[in-house]
Amino acid sequence: MYPYARNGFYGRVPNWYGYMGYERAKEQPLTFVLVHGSWADASFWNGVAGELRRMGHTVFVPEYPGHGGDPNMNVTHGMISRSVADYIINHQLRDIVLVGHSFGGSVIQKVAELVPERIKRLVFMDGFVLGDGQSVVDQFPPQVQQSFEELRKASADDALIMPFPLFREAFVGLADLPLARQLYSEIRPEPAKPAFEKLDLKAFYKLNIPRSYLYLTEDNLLPQGEGYGWHPHMSSRLGLFRLVRSAGDHMTYFRTQPALLAQKLYEASRD
Amino acid sequence: MYPYARNGFYGRVPNWYGYMGYERAKEQPLTFVLVHGSWADASFWNGVAGELRRMGHTVFVPEYPGHGGDPNMNVTHGMISRSVADYIINHQLRDIVLVGHSFGGSVIQKVAELVPERIKRLVFMDGFVLGDGQSVVDQFPPQVQQSFEELRKASADDALIMPFPLFREAFVGLADLPLARQLYSEIRPEPAKPAFEKLDLKAFYKLNIPRSYLYLTEDNLLPQGEGYGWHPHMSSRLGLFRLVRSAGDHMTYFRTQPALLAQKLYEASRD
Amino acid sequence: MYPYARNGFYGRVPNWYGYMGYERAKEQPLTFVLVHGSWADASFWNGVAGELRRMGHTVFVPEYPGHGGDPNMNVTHGMISRSVADYIINHQLRDIVLVGHSFGGSVIQKVAELVPERIKRLVFMDGFVLGDGQSVVDQFPPQVQQSFEELRKASADDALIMPFPLFREAFVGLADLPLARQLYSEIRPEPAKPAFEKLDLKAFYKLNIPRSYLYLTEDNLLPQGEGYGWHPHMSSRLGLFRLVRSAGDHMTYFRTQPALLAQKLYEASRD
Repeated sequence: MYPYARNGFYGRVPNWYGYMGYERAKEQPLTFVLVHGSWADASFWNGVAGELRRMGHTVFVPEYPGHGGDPNMNVTHGMISRSVADYIINHQLRDIVLVGHSFGGSVIQKVAELVPERIKRLVFMDGFVLGDGQSVVDQFPPQVQQSFEELRKASADDALIMPFPLFREAFVGLADLPLARQLYSEIRPEPAKPAFEKLDLKAFYKLNIPRSYLYLTEDNLLPQGEGYGWHPHMSSRLGLFRLVRSAGDHMTYFRTQPALLAQKLYEASRD
Repeated sequence: MYPYARNGFYGRVPNWYGYMGYERAKEQPLTFVLVHGSWADASFWNGVAGELRRMGHTVFVPEYPGHGGDPNMNVTHGMISRSVADYIINHQLRDIVLVGHSFGGSVIQKVAELVPERIKRLVFMDGFVLGDGQSVVDQFPPQVQQSFEELRKASADDALIMPFPLFREAFVGLADLPLARQLYSEIRPEPAKPAFEKLDLKAFYKLNIPRSYLYLTEDNLLPQGEGYGWHPHMSSRLGLFRLVRSAGDHMTYFRTQPALLAQKLYEASRD
Repeated sequence: MYPYARNGFYGRVPNWYGYMGYERAKEQPLTFVLVHGSWADASFWNGVAGELRRMGHTVFVPEYPGHGGDPNMNVTHGMISRSVADYIINHQLRDIVLVGHSFGGSVIQKVAELVPERIKRLVFMDGFVLGDGQSVVDQFPPQVQQSFEELRKASADDALIMPFPLFREAFVGLADLPLARQLYSEIRPEPAKPAFEKLDLKAFYKLNIPRSYLYLTEDNLLPQGEGYGWHPHMSSRLGLFRLVRSAGDHMTYFRTQPALLAQKLYEASRD
């Protein structure tokens, strides 16, 4: 079956590909649209976007309502996904790889319903994959759901203000303390409403867009099993999908290992 | 308990083994019999077999009915396992490490029933470990089972012809596209019947042959949990077993990382 | 949000930290108390303790009743946890990181109830995290529980004598055979009673001490899922916790890779 096998050749081959008459592919230039998650804004992607651009890709990083420069907490999941779809349309983007991190996973599910013909692949990077009729908050164990409810009630403007111990252990557990504090200083209140909205995703589950899941193996924001978790619990809702794994927790390596994450993201995204 | 501990010694030791009066073992020469899976033939093992031979091991790679040079699609699981057992007998092999990849896992279960006295260890390398009375197809989620049924019906000679998107995402997700196409060009129709046969494995589950599971962590052909999967779902059926993990999807690293897989296979196989 | 982002800077940065005005933290000196598990004694930690000391930390390794120099098999879980708590008190230790490996996990649960004010973090290193009212033996599948019962009955003095095949495959699967034999030669009978005791842990589950789980990914002593296992099954009982992963089985790397485990333990233990 292999050319070298037919010759009975078993010597160490510096380049196995070459021996098969197979040239290792040059990187395929892709157009990425990167959608951040909660308690973050477009700058969350700066490190990874920079690495992807260095690799020769084109990268777009939309900001959405209630985040970045927009202090409005009274936003809906529909406003957010609509704004990302409009961004794609207004920039006349086609054949895009649409990437969602964390809450951004639920966003790209809805964006895929709005502009399916412009998307060549969906990539969930520890991103929520909601079942039809579910909310982001539904993906957490009951005690955590209750914590989110309490955070919401404690807020004057329906925002979720992250407590540092939660952030330090569950979002950036691999960071040292000074970096954890630095990253914590950068986050801002998150509009609560979109995380509690139950989404109609019937159209999403009829789409045939290729999809990948990039799973960060130290991400413990959700339990890693027992009926919860990024992978395989939520990822399995995607049906047939490509799986790529990387070391990393929910947020730290976006800052400290952007080249690693960009490489893994490319492997999840290429055709 | 350790000699160096009794001396209160805590210095960095270049060779920890030496300090314990323990000489790092030379590799133990083993006799491997490597059993490939579906949509493959004996050449599937060329890379790994070559590396094992370079390490000093003896390697046999039997071909079985309905695969390789044999175009017959009307084969049974029993014909396949019988042919592998006969191969072992005819080559007068003893003290073998019997390795099964994928469908080959179900084959070595039956071969172990036929020639248990010749086998020193069973190694499942992302290989199916069927419960008594189950088929290979039973290990897949209902939707995938239905897809297999449809592939079967679409065939004139009861063969399963792999669709490229399934192969690309679920079998070789870590490959780049040119390599995925190359590997796809090498596969051939698979006889459907053996994958649908429900096997009597009562005798297998009474055997006391040592066993290992070598799990490739990016292998997403089966869901990685939620009641499915190579490990821990099927591996747990082995009772007491040795676990070794490696990076890798279902097929790619057999071509691109044969030295890595051979090393891991050795670690799973030694006494 | 990042200083370099505001400048529109995307170039490769040799030191990402420096560009953020963030100095990579020097290692924080910690005071560790390391609690070993069953079939082991304080010398189990020699390698890791030596590496931690070299890194600048202070390390204490208490021995507990029925282990090390104490041949008494008639010990209780309460005697063990009390002795570790007394060790901490007698050495006037405060702000400690209390680490439990294996059975030692259940010990640090009880020690945390006894001297909570002296502990800054609990770290379970493939350590048992028992639910209230459970025993260590309860965490194993029924067939293994039965094996433990039989080992117990076969003993004249209520000790568990480890069979070599169990040790070789489930405790030190990554070792080669000479090292497995060496490690096996060092273990001694384990008092059975503490592993079968059902513990009242109501007080433990009211504590708010920060906690981490360090998971060794080849540790197959417990099934790695399907309702069992170190992580995520038992770890999830900790509620909010920091997760760190490392390669390793249950015992081998404590001998062969102490620097790796010490580094991972530090990452699990720092504030």
